[in-house]
Amino acid sequence: MATDGFGSDCLSGVRVLDMTQFEAGPSCTETLAWLGAEVVKIENPRGGDPGRSLGGGAGKDDPYFLNFNANKKSLTVNLKDPRGLQLVKDLAGKADVLVENFAPGAIERLGLGADVIRALNPSIIYCQVKGFGEGSPYEKNLAFDMIAQACSGIMSTTGELDGRPLKPGPSLGDTGTGMLLAISILGALFRRARTGQGDHLQVAMQDAMLHYMRIAFSQQARTGKAAPRAADASVSGGNPPMGIFPCQGGGPNDYVYVYTSRANPEHWRRLLGVIGREDLADDPRYATPAARAEHRQEVDEMVAAWTRRHSKHQAMEIIGAAGIPAGAVLDTLELTNDPTFEQRGIMQTIDHPVVGPFKMVAWPVRFSGRPPPVRPAPLLGADNDDVLTHWLGMAPESVSSLRAAAIIG
Amino acid sequence: MATDGFGSDCLSGVRVLDMTQFEAGPSCTETLAWLGAEVVKIENPRGGDPGRSLGGGAGKDDPYFLNFNANKKSLTVNLKDPRGLQLVKDLAGKADVLVENFAPGAIERLGLGADVIRALNPSIIYCQVKGFGEGSPYEKNLAFDMIAQACSGIMSTTGELDGRPLKPGPSLGDTGTGMLLAISILGALFRRARTGQGDHLQVAMQDAMLHYMRIAFSQQARTGKAAPRAADASVSGGNPPMGIFPCQGGGPNDYVYVYTSRANPEHWRRLLGVIGREDLADDPRYATPAARAEHRQEVDEMVAAWTRRHSKHQAMEIIGAAGIPAGAVLDTLELTNDPTFEQRGIMQTIDHPVVGPFKMVAWPVRFSGRPPPVRPAPLLGADNDDVLTHWLGMAPESVSSLRAAAIIG
Repeated sequence: MATDGFGSDCLSGVRVLDMTQFEAGPSCTETLAWLGAEVVKIENPRGGDPGRSLGGGAGKDDPYFLNFNANKKSLTVNLKDPRGLQLVKDLAGKADVLVENFAPGAIERLGLGADVIRALNPSIIYCQVKGFGEGSPYEKNLAFDMIAQACSGIMSTTGELDGRPLKPGPSLGDTGTGMLLAISILGALFRRARTGQGDHLQVAMQDAMLHYMRIAFSQQARTGKAAPRAADASVSGGNPPMGIFPCQGGGPNDYVYVYTSRANPEHWRRLLGVIGREDLADDPRYATPAARAEHRQEVDEMVAAWTRRHSKHQAMEIIGAAGIPAGAVLDTLELTNDPTFEQRGIMQTIDHPVVGPFKMVAWPVRFSGRPPPVRPAPLLGADNDDVLTHWLGMAPESVSSLRAAAIIG
Repeated sequence: MATDGFGSDCLSGVRVLDMTQFEAGPSCTETLAWLGAEVVKIENPRGGDPGRSLGGGAGKDDPYFLNFNANKKSLTVNLKDPRGLQLVKDLAGKADVLVENFAPGAIERLGLGADVIRALNPSIIYCQVKGFGEGSPYEKNLAFDMIAQACSGIMSTTGELDGRPLKPGPSLGDTGTGMLLAISILGALFRRARTGQGDHLQVAMQDAMLHYMRIAFSQQARTGKAAPRAADASVSGGNPPMGIFPCQGGGPNDYVYVYTSRANPEHWRRLLGVIGREDLADDPRYATPAARAEHRQEVDEMVAAWTRRHSKHQAMEIIGAAGIPAGAVLDTLELTNDPTFEQRGIMQTIDHPVVGPFKMVAWPVRFSGRPPPVRPAPLLGADNDDVLTHWLGMAPESVSSLRAAAIIG
């Protein structure tokens, strides 16, 4: 019953033709690769996915590319040559899934639109990521992560209460979209295994972002007003103490988050214990959530007076151990240097043939105790021979002649 | 070949025992319900999922609950009665998937831990959401959305460059985690259909957040330093003009996002056309990304001088139509009032038996042109008879006697 592959055997035998670049598409197909699909990335022989050179580092694939293309194969094809285009059609004929995230209209102009591909392979699951949905007034517009975050309420709810809108750190517009498409592909694959049915899946980055904004839409439904900025708390408001509190050190991330739930009066009582103010447990100024809201400033100052005397790590440890939700504001370097992520397989170090050892975030869900193992992102065109001989049954000489004609590699 | 269900037939026949509350778990199981699984939510007869009453509205399920529990069924069971507990075990024996997101240790104390349930149903996919992973120093700690966002680098990268860390508007700690678990469940279901194999899936909210932070880890890999705050741009920096620009109106969200890519010099040239400054196209002060970075303030002011004379909608329309990525900073009310989302099925209005018509964000991925249809979240215990008679083959009289004994409903 136990799995040896830690999830990496889930999609054994599934073939994905990956015509994606940058992040929204690649994050989706990488997920399928982690779960065991054979994902073949079709790349331009001249440089491939622009993500490879995003950081401007010469001769080495950028960390961005390594992060979003692990466990995949790379096949370089010149799509401007009709024989290259035919090669992709032949591969699509053998694929279970095709994913693309080109600019609007580009895949159709290439002659690889849904109609063409679904006619030659009716059971394929043909998938597209766009910035704005078909039928939107902006369906032809270009989009990037930040545009999706601007147009979906995310920036309007991020920032100080009286400050300008800000973009959150995470690339939710890209990876957040890719994840929703991955779910839909997996659903369609499950059905297809039973019925043979293909499908045409489309997701727009703007639409996908609304899915992550549902606490904001919930708050609006309660108040009738647009959801406000979250500041350090939440678009739903919340009850003091709740937010970040300054800690020893005074650095930009020397804060601890403390949360006391309205639904659990014990959080506040326990916190009073931690900060040595049990004397206030029954003080009417603080006894109820409503009372604490009225005395927000005093309440926050009381907690801050304690947190300022502790490092964020101490504060998290002490408050958390007392049964109150608390978390240090950690930066990416602190996270990378914390050995427990690697011990648990949540970060894994790959040995890339050019870059060398590279520690990266792996798929964070554990199957029987471990996340799927990470293999390095492929070098450009690394799998040309493998894919053409195995998917298309080509003879090695035919592959060589394609290479000689600069159609591949 | 065409689907009638717009994806809602993908998981037909899959049974999910849903022991989740609030958002991280419910968002995951709701996704499975949208794709056609029969999701039965086990709820405490006294009030059920605390999300039902989150906003404090008496007698009506809160918008938060409606948003995260659509298309599910509700079964009320008193888990403190051994007969209620046995009922849940019987249901688990018939389920394909079980999902829980109780506090650490709670499900085991109930006697429904992975060992117990997997012993009685070896092919079940048993799934857990926790705040911190097993093996983390904080594995026993409580977590909520904001704690996960604090402890994963998200807050450290959100905020003004010289400001304090902030929490983004979206509830990524919850829904972002739920989506990664949903992907893993679907992968495991796909494998199980072939092999019969069950599994034990676990995801920690802190770990899941790292997945969305991979541009920040990429930037750190380039510089060796912790990723900075994104402000209105990106943790990767970027090239001016890039960010939000003020528009007519002067309201808190009267801004347009404009992005010019380093990789595409045409964006800047086109933008000069829009703002009527074609004369600067070959000006060495602005001709290259590096030159524009040196003259950031002048460049930004030039663009702002134009955007201030336009509404954010006009600005998005004109700049976008010229082939430059641009997006108005929209708030949740503007999005709700935009009829194109409902026309495209991205928002759908349900008719809830108590709340009445309620417009909500649907699953944003379209299957052959439409997202799956939304059905209202269930009233507490609405499906007691249905589930017990169909899953367990109980006679109606047995159900009645369970009800009479206050074991259900």
